[in-house]
Amino acid sequence: MKNLKKILLLSILACLALPTFAQKASWIWYPGDFDIYMSNVMQNRRTERGSFFPVFWKMDSHYVLVDFHKEFNLSQPEEVKLFVEGTYNVKINGQAISGFPKTIQIPAGKHKLSLKVYNQAHVPAVFVQGKTVISDETWLTTFEDKEWIDASGKTSDKSGTTFVSAGSWNLSDPTKLPSQYKLPTVAQSAVKTEKAGTGYVADFGKETFGFIKVHGLKGKGRLSLYYGESKEEALSTDKCETLDYLDLDIAQKKDSVMPLSKAFRYVNFQPENGVSADSISMLYEYSPVTERGSFKSSDAELNKIYDVAKYTFHLNTREFFIDGIKRDRWVWSGDAYQSYLMNYYSFFDAPTVKRTLLAQRGKDPVTAHINTIMDYSFYWFLGIYDYYKFTGDQKFVQDVYPRMQSLMTYIDGRKNKNGLLEWMPGDWIFIDWADKLSKDGEVSFEQLLYARSLETMALCAKLANDADGADKYDKQAKALKAKIFELYWNQNKSALVHSRIDDKQTDNVTRYANMFGIFFDYFTPEQKLAVKKNVLLNNDVAKITTPYMRFYELEALCAMGEQSYVLKEMKNYWGGMLKLGATSFWEEYNPDKKGTEHLAMYGRPFGKSLCHAWGASPIYLLGKYYLGVEPTAPGYETYTITPNLGGLEWMEGKVPTANGDISVYCSKKEIKVSSATGTGKLKITSKTKPVVKGSEVKEVSKGVYEVTIEKGKQYSIKYNPPSPLKGELKSNTE
Amino acid sequence: MKNLKKILLLSILACLALPTFAQKASWIWYPGDFDIYMSNVMQNRRTERGSFFPVFWKMDSHYVLVDFHKEFNLSQPEEVKLFVEGTYNVKINGQAISGFPKTIQIPAGKHKLSLKVYNQAHVPAVFVQGKTVISDETWLTTFEDKEWIDASGKTSDKSGTTFVSAGSWNLSDPTKLPSQYKLPTVAQSAVKTEKAGTGYVADFGKETFGFIKVHGLKGKGRLSLYYGESKEEALSTDKCETLDYLDLDIAQKKDSVMPLSKAFRYVNFQPENGVSADSISMLYEYSPVTERGSFKSSDAELNKIYDVAKYTFHLNTREFFIDGIKRDRWVWSGDAYQSYLMNYYSFFDAPTVKRTLLAQRGKDPVTAHINTIMDYSFYWFLGIYDYYKFTGDQKFVQDVYPRMQSLMTYIDGRKNKNGLLEWMPGDWIFIDWADKLSKDGEVSFEQLLYARSLETMALCAKLANDADGADKYDKQAKALKAKIFELYWNQNKSALVHSRIDDKQTDNVTRYANMFGIFFDYFTPEQKLAVKKNVLLNNDVAKITTPYMRFYELEALCAMGEQSYVLKEMKNYWGGMLKLGATSFWEEYNPDKKGTEHLAMYGRPFGKSLCHAWGASPIYLLGKYYLGVEPTAPGYETYTITPNLGGLEWMEGKVPTANGDISVYCSKKEIKVSSATGTGKLKITSKTKPVVKGSEVKEVSKGVYEVTIEKGKQYSIKYNPPSPLKGELKSNTE
Repeated sequence: MKNLKKILLLSILACLALPTFAQKASWIWYPGDFDIYMSNVMQNRRTERGSFFPVFWKMDSHYVLVDFHKEFNLSQPEEVKLFVEGTYNVKINGQAISGFPKTIQIPAGKHKLSLKVYNQAHVPAVFVQGKTVISDETWLTTFEDKEWIDASGKTSDKSGTTFVSAGSWNLSDPTKLPSQYKLPTVAQSAVKTEKAGTGYVADFGKETFGFIKVHGLKGKGRLSLYYGESKEEALSTDKCETLDYLDLDIAQKKDSVMPLSKAFRYVNFQPENGVSADSISMLYEYSPVTERGSFKSSDAELNKIYDVAKYTFHLNTREFFIDGIKRDRWVWSGDAYQSYLMNYYSFFDAPTVKRTLLAQRGKDPVTAHINTIMDYSFYWFLGIYDYYKFTGDQKFVQDVYPRMQSLMTYIDGRKNKNGLLEWMPGDWIFIDWADKLSKDGEVSFEQLLYARSLETMALCAKLANDADGADKYDKQAKALKAKIFELYWNQNKSALVHSRIDDKQTDNVTRYANMFGIFFDYFTPEQKLAVKKNVLLNNDVAKITTPYMRFYELEALCAMGEQSYVLKEMKNYWGGMLKLGATSFWEEYNPDKKGTEHLAMYGRPFGKSLCHAWGASPIYLLGKYYLGVEPTAPGYETYTITPNLGGLEWMEGKVPTANGDISVYCSKKEIKVSSATGTGKLKITSKTKPVVKGSEVKEVSKGVYEVTIEKGKQYSIKYNPPSPLKGELKSNTE
Repeated sequence: MKNLKKILLLSILACLALPTFAQKASWIWYPGDFDIYMSNVMQNRRTERGSFFPVFWKMDSHYVLVDFHKEFNLSQPEEVKLFVEGTYNVKINGQAISGFPKTIQIPAGKHKLSLKVYNQAHVPAVFVQGKTVISDETWLTTFEDKEWIDASGKTSDKSGTTFVSAGSWNLSDPTKLPSQYKLPTVAQSAVKTEKAGTGYVADFGKETFGFIKVHGLKGKGRLSLYYGESKEEALSTDKCETLDYLDLDIAQKKDSVMPLSKAFRYVNFQPENGVSADSISMLYEYSPVTERGSFKSSDAELNKIYDVAKYTFHLNTREFFIDGIKRDRWVWSGDAYQSYLMNYYSFFDAPTVKRTLLAQRGKDPVTAHINTIMDYSFYWFLGIYDYYKFTGDQKFVQDVYPRMQSLMTYIDGRKNKNGLLEWMPGDWIFIDWADKLSKDGEVSFEQLLYARSLETMALCAKLANDADGADKYDKQAKALKAKIFELYWNQNKSALVHSRIDDKQTDNVTRYANMFGIFFDYFTPEQKLAVKKNVLLNNDVAKITTPYMRFYELEALCAMGEQSYVLKEMKNYWGGMLKLGATSFWEEYNPDKKGTEHLAMYGRPFGKSLCHAWGASPIYLLGKYYLGVEPTAPGYETYTITPNLGGLEWMEGKVPTANGDISVYCSKKEIKVSSATGTGKLKITSKTKPVVKGSEVKEVSKGVYEVTIEKGKQYSIKYNPPSPLKGELKSNTE
């Protein structure tokens, strides 16, 4: 009965949403092209103190001439409206129609409708809207149709054309050209203003992003706006990172919106003599994603951390996943990789993941690593496999597989005589922002990511039906993995060393390769324990000061059941930023620093981003390792729930999936679960056999029980957790 | 004295041309990018009966983000003006200047000036104009500068960036953006009008090209313009190839210029009731190249052929060398290859050659043959070597060499099990427009072009300092050449057969591979004679009906001294078109056809182009094989002059080179020569030792004498040619 109601409701909604046409048309283009185009637009919005500040890697371009076609079998003749961005022609069954028709008639029967579009400035795109003839991702496209004719006028009959299915962002308004795409905005006011110089500083209450609007602007002279994530920055007219200078000559009062959106909490508004304005406000610009994931617990500070992390992440979720909102606003692969993972536990917005992956990769030929960074090429591969794991979208893997191959070919071409990767001209070995971190020689961390990427290639090759490729990459991955342990594992140190120089291990042990080795599951159980003790929980090994690598460090500890330790670390580290007044999480946080030292980076007093996506990792850690939800088959067809309170009294939250949410409540007495997708296994550690109504409880190992979770049902389980809970064991360095 | 005057004059001219600045600035961009951009613009101007008709191969795009820089050592501070097409920043010694400065001050001393430009719609371009700081091809550019910084703000010190020298078309007006580039036009009138329908047909007297201008246009309704290379075409409102429909509503009389330039001799002007106009005229659009080459002789018909060929060729010399002015107006590699050769004997316009080569090749990755045609990829290679041979411009070879390599890698990747090329999906095997010409199996013609291209690669590798490449390509070329003779030479037929199918020679002998084998000098002297007899002069071998392949057929005969025979053929073939009233030469001419049959092609009554570049080959044949001028070292450092009257009483003409012209007069008694370049060898066949004042005459073989020609001198030689002259020998089929 319930299900029937739901179906009816869905049907009604479907009818309401599509009052005129049976199917939903959208703007379509050559797949990946709008992603590349729009990422160029977005990334070129960066300025530094009024100077245009573009990226330093190759920006690709869309195909400027694209053919679109689809075959239809119409039971009745149909009038079809055509909307095109570009110069175009239209053919029905290969016969061109004169001019640039806006409406065409397609007779009943089987017909092929083709449009060919040229556009250098913007992405060639079409929107086709008939009763049944509509543009969507089922259309085929190509950038070279190879339709030559012979001397008699006959079209070539031996086609070598590769057609691929069209790309789309589901832009469903035919009157709004794709090039006009913009994120929505909403008007917001400052919460406080304070006199400064000839103007004032406006405080918007928290870190935010948008366009400043100046009301009642008038006069002749210069208006200067200095933006600050901190008040100190806004007041520092000669050192703040972003600003606007407007040279005005306005007789009548008018409102003026700044051309570029900016990140700020404070805006220092300084009109010269002769210029005046009534006030300033802002247009908050945001990505209209849905906040689906949630987390709440008995710990108020942790809840605050989660909320600020989610706000931080939302600010950095824009047309694409970007690094930080103040400075770069670029699509960095290492940063985005973490955003993907956070996204799966918050918005579950698959389109933004796809867009970001496509934008990063750009087009062939590969002339450098992604963002020029070796590690960032590897994160890109990892991001694709995760995307498949969380969404089950095999088609995207198949579509992007050729570009995976060409990037891997580029990387394989850069191996040294030992079959390992080391710095070559043009490579940036990033790893992390950390003092005295050696990038010389063959760095173990890079080889580890390389091996993982090859494993990803093997898996994706299978998904793309490339059996030979799967076999090749699998062999390559296995060989490299074996070599890593042969060359970098140091028995005395019981850890992977940081690097090899001149074919010899260096003495240096860092956290990077070791923590990745844990959640990549590359170590034996004994090695894992040794690494945990000798590296992760060893204060003599250089500390990590970026949330970026803390993400993986804490993940590694969680993967080993150290939720209780990690909870304290989270409260210390992210709680530490909150105690300093943070309203969003930072690019870097070193508790040893004082006052305005926290604002500096890159040798600039306000160089640091105070709202950085990689600062938001608690979203991911709490969803995956506390609520404990994780897919075990693509798209959550199967999954596990392993709640771990980590010392909390209770927690509750939702983890989104493509088909609906998984809800978890967990206290020290009861676990409640419901799910809208797949088949789950709830794993419970309990001193006594848990009790659940209407479902079977299986003991899978001593004191560990499993309950099968079916979709659409509600489960409530009474249990009796051991005390201290697993994960609350004091770690050996405390 | 004469020379001194000339130098003085040149100096004065130089001063006049550059009144303000010591050096000449020009717009610069990433090399090849404007060529690709502008060829997209040009090729997308094609329409067919009002429908947009774009190319069917991949159109590439410029790099959208480009960095430009140059280091200067200034003795004095300098004010420098900046003109930029795109969004940009400016840095002096790496320090950005705020905003988009139009004038900057560079202090004295050594400084690096950088501009970084983003432009999706047009090519990122800069024009820098100071007293000594100017933009030109010495600037360096890149599309990925890889200028990352570390956490301290320090710029990466290990650069892997590839900088290349900027491209330019010598556009020297800073106020005219490169994207506004247009060919010049000049107003011209119709020579005759004749009533037709509700309007009239205007006759412009000869084949021409430009924009129709309608004077005094007024009224409400439709105005239709039907263009015709023939009167029949202009009158055929439903079959003419190009037209304009204008839907008007104009209250006051005004002049209106059509948006697209068209090819025509006749324009059929048809206003609907309610529309009226005073008259039409045209804006003739042309490339401002200089007509440097010339030819005149005792034969008036031949002179007419030469003049009409040169006009035909000029019409098809536009932003790039195109195929024909009516229909495609595209950059076809096989067509352009002939244009390059004609150009060396007429305009000697090196920039148009470079542009066309760059536009054809586009960018990596290679996804198809050039224009999708296998033979056309090969002509592209040949065009580069010829360019070097005629101009001596090694830098261009070096610049384009990486794109030569990637195209050759693509081709090498398509060899079959026998190491030969045959049709694969996506390949168009063109060869020629000819009935029943088999493209099946391994076609000998394609292997021959492949071998010649590999030889070109070996030569260009050497010029680009790639010794390994030179060695590799040389070996590959030699092996392929040997294989061609092993597999295709048929001893019984004394010719190369057309193809192999299923590893066996076919019976078919065609002219293509055999005639190319002659001027490629691939045959032994015995084979040459046999091929001449059994193929070239054998009427049983299928005749060639396009001027395109007649070019090579006649070249092969000239190369064997058959100038007399070829002269008659020229008079028959090109003279045949003139007798039919041609004012420019055609895409195809079959003397067996009658009346309007001559206008039809591709199954369309007016499908044939009546003004096709490949119709202009007499320019090349007369310059190279009659005046007999040919470089023997790159850029005419050395050259030969081997005049051959081919039965004419006398001839005279000029052959242009990069450094000035070579003038030749030749009668049956006297040869007069002067040259502005290099060192020449004049070769004279004479019964007695020729007499020349102030120069030595050497007998190099019996009856063949050689005079060394030094630049700047005038030579007059009395000689005594044998009768009949070499080349006047009756060929064995006459």
